[in-house]
Amino acid sequence: MWIQRRITLPARPRGFHLVTSEITDEVPELRSLKVGIATVFMQHTSASLTLNENASPDVRRDFRTWFDDAVPDGWPEFSHTLEGPDDMPAHVKSSLLGSSLVLPVADGLLALGTWQGIYLCEHRDGGGERSVVVTAFGEG
Amino acid sequence: MWIQRRITLPARPRGFHLVTSEITDEVPELRSLKVGIATVFMQHTSASLTLNENASPDVRRDFRTWFDDAVPDGWPEFSHTLEGPDDMPAHVKSSLLGSSLVLPVADGLLALGTWQGIYLCEHRDGGGERSVVVTAFGEG
Amino acid sequence: MWIQRRITLPARPRGFHLVTSEITDEVPELRSLKVGIATVFMQHTSASLTLNENASPDVRRDFRTWFDDAVPDGWPEFSHTLEGPDDMPAHVKSSLLGSSLVLPVADGLLALGTWQGIYLCEHRDGGGERSVVVTAFGEG
Repeated sequence: MWIQRRITLPARPRGFHLVTSEITDEVPELRSLKVGIATVFMQHTSASLTLNENASPDVRRDFRTWFDDAVPDGWPEFSHTLEGPDDMPAHVKSSLLGSSLVLPVADGLLALGTWQGIYLCEHRDGGGERSVVVTAFGEG
Repeated sequence: MWIQRRITLPARPRGFHLVTSEITDEVPELRSLKVGIATVFMQHTSASLTLNENASPDVRRDFRTWFDDAVPDGWPEFSHTLEGPDDMPAHVKSSLLGSSLVLPVADGLLALGTWQGIYLCEHRDGGGERSVVVTAFGEG
Repeated sequence: MWIQRRITLPARPRGFHLVTSEITDEVPELRSLKVGIATVFMQHTSASLTLNENASPDVRRDFRTWFDDAVPDGWPEFSHTLEGPDDMPAHVKSSLLGSSLVLPVADGLLALGTWQGIYLCEHRDGGGERSVVVTAFGEG
């Protein structure tokens, strides 16, 4: 049994945003999978997806602080500067965090840990809407 | 054909630990898959999984050295400090390395390269037991 | 329906190399999948795979610059130096970027975003040929 859906997430400010239910609400068919896998795929090169702590907003704020420090806007060693000082850093951050999540499904639910949530990592100022593709499959 | 198993890995000190056989021993059914995929998923936000060199303990020690330097304990820019100086760094390291592995299965074995092994990356002091979920599927 | 193929990519200099069509050309059977998943797996611990911008060579050059700066050759804190000053940094970079890609397949094509391409990330000088395993499955 295969499920595939493209989801458009609304534009968000630069930073790390919890989007777990925004994504799972779009694929109610997950509930019919007894065992399976769900993949979530970001179709962009300046935003990414990761799993992390789903409770404290300050964790998400600290993520932004650390990544902005590790890959600073306008880093003088970058040569690809045509699209703005936040563009090349966004590409690097995107690859550090990755474009896809692969999540186990058990008894109709994502088998996440208690504290795990899905982060949309928006690395640009003015990144706009973001498209993700959810593909899930398993046994009913 | 689907296989899914939750495995509890015993508490380990902060650092990078080779756990390949500890994991594969728990899913002997992999041997019956002629072609397939196995995913390993960490259900925590302060420990992670990666593949790397399976021979030299000094490689794993150097991993700890580099990650502790890149995301230092008690970094003054972090605001989420309530759970200790190693908590927020653990979250960042966890996302840098990732929560899941996706491994090809061929002729009943994980199709790893000669030098590849599965690392449990424990980012906390006193992280405790860690739960991973192995989900595999394929053709017998 | 399962497809699995091991592909040998020719030796390349250290850096980030666009290999999308080199990989997809080897698995023409993808075209017969209406919906599915394709995974690409790097069987090495000093090279990796990522998705990023598929147009500007200067983006790929800047990737090399940033990663060489973040994990410098001959970093004095590394103890695993036997295999050369670029070996241990290659291991760390490999885990930062990851060994596998998980890509949705829709209507016979990888459902990549407009600007996404597959990068082979070669972290060694003289890394030699690199083996990747493509495993895809889905519904025709």
